[in-house]
Amino acid sequence: MVIHCYENYPSFPVHLLAAEDPIRPGLYDALSKHAGFSPGEYEFYCSLLKKRIVRKKEHYLQAGDISRATAYVASGCLRQYIIDDHGKEIIIQFALEDWWIGDLESFHYEKPSLFYIQALEDSELMLLSRREFLRVCDELPKYKAFHDEKVQRNHFATLKRLSNAKLGTPEEKYLLLMKEQPQLFQRIPLHYIACFLGIEPESLSRLRKRLCEKPGKS
Amino acid sequence: MVIHCYENYPSFPVHLLAAEDPIRPGLYDALSKHAGFSPGEYEFYCSLLKKRIVRKKEHYLQAGDISRATAYVASGCLRQYIIDDHGKEIIIQFALEDWWIGDLESFHYEKPSLFYIQALEDSELMLLSRREFLRVCDELPKYKAFHDEKVQRNHFATLKRLSNAKLGTPEEKYLLLMKEQPQLFQRIPLHYIACFLGIEPESLSRLRKRLCEKPGKS
Repeated sequence: MVIHCYENYPSFPVHLLAAEDPIRPGLYDALSKHAGFSPGEYEFYCSLLKKRIVRKKEHYLQAGDISRATAYVASGCLRQYIIDDHGKEIIIQFALEDWWIGDLESFHYEKPSLFYIQALEDSELMLLSRREFLRVCDELPKYKAFHDEKVQRNHFATLKRLSNAKLGTPEEKYLLLMKEQPQLFQRIPLHYIACFLGIEPESLSRLRKRLCEKPGKS
Repeated sequence: MVIHCYENYPSFPVHLLAAEDPIRPGLYDALSKHAGFSPGEYEFYCSLLKKRIVRKKEHYLQAGDISRATAYVASGCLRQYIIDDHGKEIIIQFALEDWWIGDLESFHYEKPSLFYIQALEDSELMLLSRREFLRVCDELPKYKAFHDEKVQRNHFATLKRLSNAKLGTPEEKYLLLMKEQPQLFQRIPLHYIACFLGIEPESLSRLRKRLCEKPGKS
């Protein structure tokens, strides 16, 4: 099955690996288990995807641009952030393999995004353009239901993050992230984690040192 | 058309007023304009609603309980909040007339809620139980689409609030709320606004005083 590449990007067509391919089982898993796709439907869906490689430090999205596609992270790691009026960056989310990333509001309403999305590692994204997204939703209503369920779960997670952002000490925020998303600490530089938590990098370093020194820590 | 009242609440049946009734045009507006309901469909929908009066300071939802219904605010004002491990309250949202309030995650997955919802004024809610919600979604798929669109818009708003919670000074947060939801300031005691903004009430009072004294303020 051929996946086309986006304009302005290396235009080598790539072959999407079969469902049993260990490299990208997450997409097949999500669509077969959670959207109820048959192998044929999965193949149809994949035929509409385009691949985009985003090199480390390159931006996939800039504030002011319109997000033209939904993006499934096949490999790599990215951060989504906003810059305030004082030039300060705040990270809203990270995305690793098998996560989706993008600005859905910009995508759905075709309005300029407030967000930047930048690769922290060389990353491979599988993009579904708005036109193709609408086509899949039209031809396979279960994909629309899957998408809506995903948005809803994201919404619940964001509400919890809003609560966490307002509550708790830096230590509590750090420990919660360690518990809920430990994989981030293996991939993402600490100063980005600090930015995500809204803590100064130096404070995070001191906090980690203090926690390591705590008696009884295993 | 008769609206039934929830068990444990004054069980006088009330008549839902017609669509042209000025008291509750918001519900009809939302369902006819945004969900595409016909008058007959609106009547069917309303026949499934139950009314609940929540007196000032009374709780509509307690953390640990399961949210059993979606709630449309026909009149009044409520706050949704969480209490952290140190007993500190953080307000996640307010709801005035024509807003919906509830814990959708608890409602959809029938799991205990993390949130409290309390009336700040005597409030009248129109409740749709989970069973009836599923029935409407089944019989009127456009209601499901309307609901999903509402969740999506809520999600986008929550993402912006998450950005705002992490960004900006107390003054910027206050001015943004004044700009985006000025009606809150006419109804809600300032110490609740402070709690919503994550500012100490005394700091908010000083901030407001300082802004009033600023030269050039009209």
